[in-house]
Amino acid sequence: MLTKPPHSFDDATRVAAGDSRWTGHTSDDYWAFVGPFGGVTAATMLRAIIEHPQRSGNPLSLTVNFCAPIAQGPFDLDVRLIKANRSTQHWSVELTQGGTDVATFATAVFAVRRPSWSHQPAQLPAAPPFEQLRPYPKSSLRMSWVRQYDFRFVEGEPQLGGAPHAAPASAFSKLWIGDTKPRKIDVLSLMSMSDAFFGRIFHVRNEFVPFGTVSLTTYFHADAEDLAEEDISHVLATADAKTFHKSYGDQTGELWSPNGRLLATTTQIAYFKA
Amino acid sequence: MLTKPPHSFDDATRVAAGDSRWTGHTSDDYWAFVGPFGGVTAATMLRAIIEHPQRSGNPLSLTVNFCAPIAQGPFDLDVRLIKANRSTQHWSVELTQGGTDVATFATAVFAVRRPSWSHQPAQLPAAPPFEQLRPYPKSSLRMSWVRQYDFRFVEGEPQLGGAPHAAPASAFSKLWIGDTKPRKIDVLSLMSMSDAFFGRIFHVRNEFVPFGTVSLTTYFHADAEDLAEEDISHVLATADAKTFHKSYGDQTGELWSPNGRLLATTTQIAYFKA
Repeated sequence: MLTKPPHSFDDATRVAAGDSRWTGHTSDDYWAFVGPFGGVTAATMLRAIIEHPQRSGNPLSLTVNFCAPIAQGPFDLDVRLIKANRSTQHWSVELTQGGTDVATFATAVFAVRRPSWSHQPAQLPAAPPFEQLRPYPKSSLRMSWVRQYDFRFVEGEPQLGGAPHAAPASAFSKLWIGDTKPRKIDVLSLMSMSDAFFGRIFHVRNEFVPFGTVSLTTYFHADAEDLAEEDISHVLATADAKTFHKSYGDQTGELWSPNGRLLATTTQIAYFKA
Repeated sequence: MLTKPPHSFDDATRVAAGDSRWTGHTSDDYWAFVGPFGGVTAATMLRAIIEHPQRSGNPLSLTVNFCAPIAQGPFDLDVRLIKANRSTQHWSVELTQGGTDVATFATAVFAVRRPSWSHQPAQLPAAPPFEQLRPYPKSSLRMSWVRQYDFRFVEGEPQLGGAPHAAPASAFSKLWIGDTKPRKIDVLSLMSMSDAFFGRIFHVRNEFVPFGTVSLTTYFHADAEDLAEEDISHVLATADAKTFHKSYGDQTGELWSPNGRLLATTTQIAYFKA
């Protein structure tokens, strides 16, 4: 009997229910500078809520605070339902390793989304189709997580490796993002992709500097039913930054369905040393 | 001996340290539809951290999840230092009333911000000076919190009271915001003002509909020293929305010093019935 091997993303975000705590394990496939890729950590924490027996509805927002590096290996997830109303739930998830010291802390809102008046003031950014663009070459990047994604830049492709820019370049990027091994877009991949932009400071300065996301917030504008209807395996993404000051900079981003629906918006604040 | 009466904002956000819990009290001066104005609740939770003896550094981000209405009266604040590093601290604050049911839940990152390379890609939006614009008339609005602020619209002034728009209008607004009784801008007033936009849906539809912020995230791009240098009592603010779908819509916003510095960026997701 042949069974289909699971996608590495599903492996990386796997969680198991324990007696009072859930557990997970870092993935070597999604490794960044000094720890796991934050997007996969965020998706893993979201998945623990989604698979929780008390969960109702779809994710509406997730905020993840990255408190300390996560070491390679297993971790515990303390999943707590803070408050449940008729149609919304508020959750928190604490990720710890080998004790009580919190490495990552997340809060989430879930909602049963009811039909309503719909209006999307934002417009799908113009871009050539995914298939017409060449994948971003990743051979020069040592981080394993980058190889899990198929990035196809429309604007703001990083030219890392040359001399740092004399004057700051644009912080804006527009690109398609899909899994390198194609996988249907669900809320977990949206969560992860919302952290899959290169640090804006790398684009602006054209060099790698010490960098780490401190807090990440993603809003979901599509529920499971909407995503099933979209039936897509890549998103059109934009990312930008407004300011870099006293060792911290921001990032904003959008994730679009090629069909024109805004699926998620995201913002983060990140540390840098420059 | 004459003592200067405290500003109503400082009254509204007052907290007291208890044995293990902090306490606060809702303010009739900052009341909204069915509970306190969320911006003041957020500022009160932030103030509890700022006044905590273990606090170090300045607020970098605050995320507030509004779980249930807060009733008029006292509340308890359970302030917890989740994790402290050399230069950052991660905090959570739970607001409860008369028991264990959480009404509001906040997470914050504080940081000792060190000098660095600075770059602000975002540009101060063009606007006539605060003094040259007339205050937004508030006589028709029953919510007390609105009277505590001096709004001076540059663009997107709501024309509430007429017929609902046949086609959706713009969700964008640009306005000056100051305290009606002028008060120097500090991190607490920035926190509150980051929630002081009218619901974007009111602008788009030109009518009030049931509305409530579910989750609010604000990033601070200036520390106490920067704000002292600015020495201002109003900010130039912009707000916009990208989508309204299945009973939830987003909002993004910026708060600017009239001197051209981006002080804070904010985003929220809100429930609506329409």
